[in-house]
Amino acid sequence: MENNLSLISEKLIEKNNYIIVGHSIPDGDCIGSMIGLYLVLLKMNKKSIMLLEDPVPPIYHFLFGSNMILKPQDISKNDFENIIYLDCSDKNRVGESVADFLNDKRYIINIDHHATNELFGNINLVNPEASATAEIITNLIPLLNVDITKDIANALFTGIVMDTGSFQYSNTTSETLKIASYLIDSGVEQEKVRINLFESKSHKEVLLLRKSLQSLKVSSDGKIAWMQLSIDDIKELDVKDLHPEGIINHTRSIKGVEVGILFRETSPGIVKVGFRSKSAIDVAQIAKKFGGGGHEKAAGARLEGRLDDVKSKVLNSVKEVID
Amino acid sequence: MENNLSLISEKLIEKNNYIIVGHSIPDGDCIGSMIGLYLVLLKMNKKSIMLLEDPVPPIYHFLFGSNMILKPQDISKNDFENIIYLDCSDKNRVGESVADFLNDKRYIINIDHHATNELFGNINLVNPEASATAEIITNLIPLLNVDITKDIANALFTGIVMDTGSFQYSNTTSETLKIASYLIDSGVEQEKVRINLFESKSHKEVLLLRKSLQSLKVSSDGKIAWMQLSIDDIKELDVKDLHPEGIINHTRSIKGVEVGILFRETSPGIVKVGFRSKSAIDVAQIAKKFGGGGHEKAAGARLEGRLDDVKSKVLNSVKEVID
Repeated sequence: MENNLSLISEKLIEKNNYIIVGHSIPDGDCIGSMIGLYLVLLKMNKKSIMLLEDPVPPIYHFLFGSNMILKPQDISKNDFENIIYLDCSDKNRVGESVADFLNDKRYIINIDHHATNELFGNINLVNPEASATAEIITNLIPLLNVDITKDIANALFTGIVMDTGSFQYSNTTSETLKIASYLIDSGVEQEKVRINLFESKSHKEVLLLRKSLQSLKVSSDGKIAWMQLSIDDIKELDVKDLHPEGIINHTRSIKGVEVGILFRETSPGIVKVGFRSKSAIDVAQIAKKFGGGGHEKAAGARLEGRLDDVKSKVLNSVKEVID
Repeated sequence: MENNLSLISEKLIEKNNYIIVGHSIPDGDCIGSMIGLYLVLLKMNKKSIMLLEDPVPPIYHFLFGSNMILKPQDISKNDFENIIYLDCSDKNRVGESVADFLNDKRYIINIDHHATNELFGNINLVNPEASATAEIITNLIPLLNVDITKDIANALFTGIVMDTGSFQYSNTTSETLKIASYLIDSGVEQEKVRINLFESKSHKEVLLLRKSLQSLKVSSDGKIAWMQLSIDDIKELDVKDLHPEGIINHTRSIKGVEVGILFRETSPGIVKVGFRSKSAIDVAQIAKKFGGGGHEKAAGARLEGRLDDVKSKVLNSVKEVID
């Protein structure tokens, strides 16, 4: 680990131009790590761009640099020699259009914290002990002789906060908190970050939570809680493009519930199913049965069928696993 | 500060018996600090008891030592010579029955983080820079030559988490995060703490949130959001004894909202009003107008009158302050 940290820093100093990429459906750690490293490379006078398949979710628009993240179709000429993959366990995680765009011989730098990382880089910095890729980037910066500005600090702090559930998930180590402490000393604008991440929901998002809670059910043994949003609910609230961030967590918040589920009919006959585990159950395995995937405690799948049929199929499967 | 830290540690080592008290309607920092210090004194072979006017809220029952917190009526003989006030800005914060119980000459040790602390102790350790009283206690322990056990770490970590909104409020300093890091190294059981604090709500609490959200209103300028729970709602859900923890925060979570309010009719003609501010508005001042009080960003008051009358009176007053 330590070796690669200094090897990677030497490479970053040595080379001159970079495409920074992250995974499709980007989360806070992906966005925060990309922007953090991009701003550092900018201070090092390196030519670099950031590239994502999917749009930056609005809650991250407050981060300085978020509007400099490009899509493949934004770029006409592609003469960058080095690619930095961030927060991607394999090369395909960037999504199809970005993967096509990158599809030729380039020098690959791979920085990630997923234990499943396939070590696909010419050089790899993969630390599964790190709570977030942003934690690794923060450790890299002193070796690049760059001072952390408040904009860099905001981006990296956001990455860590989002991947640790505000330092509540078990991936939060004493090292994570030390790094967060260092970022605060480097100028994180805490109120700005908090308001943008947690206190800037649209009125419609709150109405969507209300609608979801109206459907809340708990199994007779108290171990499964689920909510549903039908396509009619979504049309009624006019929230087709809204990702129901955080709503599913209300299922897991109930005492005794081991698995929380949100069934969301995104179009007639298509149901997206989100899974959350509180502790012992591995929901990634459950999601996998239905062609999905994810992490042990947060996973998802996309099923075809009527909402009621999907519900009974999935609930039976979860019951089996719990029993 | 530093001086008092070592002075207090010397006193704690020198003296032999203690009553540890906290404020009425105790919160996580109050409970966590009391238990943390109690377990430390236990390891120092000091005779000590913990005393509170109000019951320990159920979410803190998981903390080892929480069932050793007594009420004044539990104690027949009172021959303790020293009182340690924790998290109390003045002596009356302990509540009437505890204040009566303590009402004679004793040596007073006052440990707190409120800037308004009246320094009423024979010796005072008041640090408004600390996010929580539990942060101060953590700093005190090394001077007492006691090793932090996992039970002590869980209690103090809980105090800090609850007073900083999971390290999101602006009172979270780089020092706070370093102290939290040290507690994790000392054995905090993170999953246990997270599940008990945030994922152990009763089904009824979630139904209460749902009922509250059904009444959500936002002012035409988008700066005030409010919800209400009538006495009929509370009776219907059979939640008279349930404190609607965290529900009010959903008002503040909406973009643009500066002040969030929850009106809760606790009995016919009595309305408890909770205020939350997102940033610039000092809601303690607003609550004060109605005979209440609190902090700049979280305050409350108890008003007499019909729910609708109280609502219009309070909303007008908040509007005036915002304009």
